Amino acid sequence: MQTKYLAKIFVTLRPSVLDPAGVAVQSGLQQMGYDNVENVRIGKYIELTITTSDETKARQDLERICDQMLSNPVIENYRFDLIEVETQTGVF
Amino acid sequence: MQTKYLAKIFVTLRPSVLDPAGVAVQSGLQQMGYDNVENVRIGKYIELTITTSDETKARQDLERICDQMLSNPVIENYRFDLIEVETQTGVF
Repeated sequence: MQTKYLAKIFVTLRPSVLDPAGVAVQSGLQQMGYDNVENVRIGKYIELTITTSDETKARQDLERICDQMLSNPVIENYRFDLIEVETQTGVF
Repeated sequence: MQTKYLAKIFVTLRPSVLDPAGVAVQSGLQQMGYDNVENVRIGKYIELTITTSDETKARQDLERICDQMLSNPVIENYRFDLIEVETQTGVF
């Protein structure tokens, strides 16, 4: 039996790392009159589907995928939510 | 009285728009052996704090900020969550 999960992955800069893009956005917003906006931090939001035998395997795969491909562990953190979308039985 | 809100903003490509970065990531993952991953879509995740008189004003400001600065409404959708983090009284 294989289950398909929707993964919602958040990759964010570690709090100690400078975010020049965030600073640029905040500066732009101030020039547009939004001087009530602060602490702008820009990260990535990734959605994908992953098909595995169970949720534990899906989480293991996703942690490796995040470490190796989607984030730079030196400067970024990640977290993800898993949502079951489909269960299939039979031969694959 | 002024309230500070933490906004968590998700900017995603509209479903009808091709995502070349997502295709590249999926192709890379397949070469790494993850052929159980599909439908990779890459978006932006932005956190910021906004200080306003009330939540309605915060939502109005954020919608303008998303439309004018954080997203390209032609090809992207956005949504955001607001979390109240601090209420301040007195003169500003």
